[in-house]
Amino acid sequence: MSTGERELRAWAYLTAVAEPPCAPLIDLVRRHGAEETARMIKARALPADGAAVATATEARHRVDTAARDLETAAAVGARLVTRDDAEWPAWSLLALDQASTAVRGGAPLALWVRGPHPLVEVTESAVGVVGSRAATSYGEHVAGRMGSGLAGAGWTVVSGGAYGIDGCAHRGALAAGGLTMAVLACGIDRDYPTGHAKLLAEIGRRGVVVTEYAPGTTAAKHRFLTRNRLVAALSNALVVVEAGRRSGAANTAAWARHLGRPLGAVPGPVTSAMSVGCHQMIADGEATLVADEVAARALVDVDGRDRRRQSPSRSTDGLSPEQFQVVEALPASGGLSVDEVAFVSGLPVDRVRPALAMLEVKGLVETSGGVWSLGGRR
Amino acid sequence: MSTGERELRAWAYLTAVAEPPCAPLIDLVRRHGAEETARMIKARALPADGAAVATATEARHRVDTAARDLETAAAVGARLVTRDDAEWPAWSLLALDQASTAVRGGAPLALWVRGPHPLVEVTESAVGVVGSRAATSYGEHVAGRMGSGLAGAGWTVVSGGAYGIDGCAHRGALAAGGLTMAVLACGIDRDYPTGHAKLLAEIGRRGVVVTEYAPGTTAAKHRFLTRNRLVAALSNALVVVEAGRRSGAANTAAWARHLGRPLGAVPGPVTSAMSVGCHQMIADGEATLVADEVAARALVDVDGRDRRRQSPSRSTDGLSPEQFQVVEALPASGGLSVDEVAFVSGLPVDRVRPALAMLEVKGLVETSGGVWSLGGRR
Repeated sequence: MSTGERELRAWAYLTAVAEPPCAPLIDLVRRHGAEETARMIKARALPADGAAVATATEARHRVDTAARDLETAAAVGARLVTRDDAEWPAWSLLALDQASTAVRGGAPLALWVRGPHPLVEVTESAVGVVGSRAATSYGEHVAGRMGSGLAGAGWTVVSGGAYGIDGCAHRGALAAGGLTMAVLACGIDRDYPTGHAKLLAEIGRRGVVVTEYAPGTTAAKHRFLTRNRLVAALSNALVVVEAGRRSGAANTAAWARHLGRPLGAVPGPVTSAMSVGCHQMIADGEATLVADEVAARALVDVDGRDRRRQSPSRSTDGLSPEQFQVVEALPASGGLSVDEVAFVSGLPVDRVRPALAMLEVKGLVETSGGVWSLGGRR
Repeated sequence: MSTGERELRAWAYLTAVAEPPCAPLIDLVRRHGAEETARMIKARALPADGAAVATATEARHRVDTAARDLETAAAVGARLVTRDDAEWPAWSLLALDQASTAVRGGAPLALWVRGPHPLVEVTESAVGVVGSRAATSYGEHVAGRMGSGLAGAGWTVVSGGAYGIDGCAHRGALAAGGLTMAVLACGIDRDYPTGHAKLLAEIGRRGVVVTEYAPGTTAAKHRFLTRNRLVAALSNALVVVEAGRRSGAANTAAWARHLGRPLGAVPGPVTSAMSVGCHQMIADGEATLVADEVAARALVDVDGRDRRRQSPSRSTDGLSPEQFQVVEALPASGGLSVDEVAFVSGLPVDRVRPALAMLEVKGLVETSGGVWSLGGRR
């Protein structure tokens, strides 16, 4: 077995050993690498600060299905994309790494991916289109039109692969010959919902299917909520097409707001229970009213400029892993001292200093009075 | 003929002699009274600053149909309400008197009114409900529900008596046994549109029909636009139920914004051309999304308090005509010197001073460094 293969098996083991998201596990992998982390977990030889990981991996640490999982994935044309890979959508997932978010969600450790396109490319210009499973024919019509309009204009349509609004958004995108991404709440080898097996296969062939769950993982209620944060994170903006008073779409919308993603909602008849959630979000000022795909694109392209031409995702491309760790350690607002950056990033102070200096040159961080913060070019 | 009768004939003559609104005519009446103003206009003996009135009355000054107009009005159960009458809705119309507005609209000189209730009472808690004549059945359903919901809760439903949304809002209010007000763009004796003759008669019997146009005046395009400002002014808030891309309702909405009236719009299917105007207003932040009558009431009652219990309209009740003129002379923001108040109100300085002093005691005006402005109790 090659080094790369051993490394990949370690990552595969880690995606299954703790229920994602598991921020302490990611911390450990950052500091020790995937193989060493996997070894420590299996041997129950975790470092002093590894108590959270010990607990999170207690139930599953003895079962290593990594080799079989990688085979299962390969059989359905899927691959495992890790934080070390060039196609890792680091910029999209950055918001999930930030302290205030990590407690509720946090970034995925790795992603199981089906589809011909590099993940980082398909997420560069992406709009989420979500809504009720119990959609009306009006909502399904609008979702399909929104999906085809966005995909036809070159945007990836991100959704959850569910019945109702999600499925229509995906289908609209495919019909327009564009890109669409389904984020699953189960293993990449599972067709959930079963009635969407053909649709998911088609998305896997022409678009991208993605999940943080290891092969074989079944869809479960808590996984839908966890999945929703990825739909929001992997989108530049989110549009809710139909949502009742209590709806999973409202959860995705809450994630979008929390992650600073512009949120839009499609209105409908005030006599429709399936539009109540959308109307509430608009009336409360949480979402912008979005009547068509042009308005949906305007959520992202607020200045009338096309962000794809000057994609901000470029700004963290080409960073060294250490520089990236340092950027990730800095909070969304406020700043940290060098010692604090070292603590949060897990890097020694004498590695943090040169990393910060390089990042300052790139305009990614700023310093004032010994305090470092994220810079204007991010 | 009694003094009162002569006075009323003068007012009736003045409502017909210039196309309303005519701010210079109102100025003249304020300073000289209705009878003297009518005499000066007929005799072409206008004061030096009366050039605008001379021009505005040039075409019609020789025709005095006042006696006949009053008879015609009486025959349909209508009366002429002037600025001197106790039931004059001074508070509602105050915004129209303010300088920035007067150039585009201005207050009415007097109002021809049909209906059993004092005008000032029915306008105390009033919400305008307007929209397209070419309404969809969805819009008509929502307008009817909105009308009955508001009227059932004790609010007067103000609209324009037109086909489509207006008519459904009026009918909804009547069906709920509540109050509704139709503001016409023609004489009080005219049934416009003719298909609404029965509806207007019913509103005149149980609610209120109002117009600034003398009996016999026909509906004309420019009069609809002029009428729209009265719909907005006589409402505490305005709700647009359906409006296409170009719609008369958008004009009423613009007046509502201009007059500081909270504006709401009802969403509908994004596939409906009749909801495009409403969606635009909501998306542009000009209107609040209003899904039902509870939300419509919340436009007025922003603090969760019921404004009708502590009606601000009381604050100018019981003012002398001079005190009222002084209040009306003050701008919505900023202040004026005593000399400036005298100029704007047309009152001599030695009458302005005691009026300001009394108004200050009542908390209606404030003074600071010789500058007078509207006070917090307004």
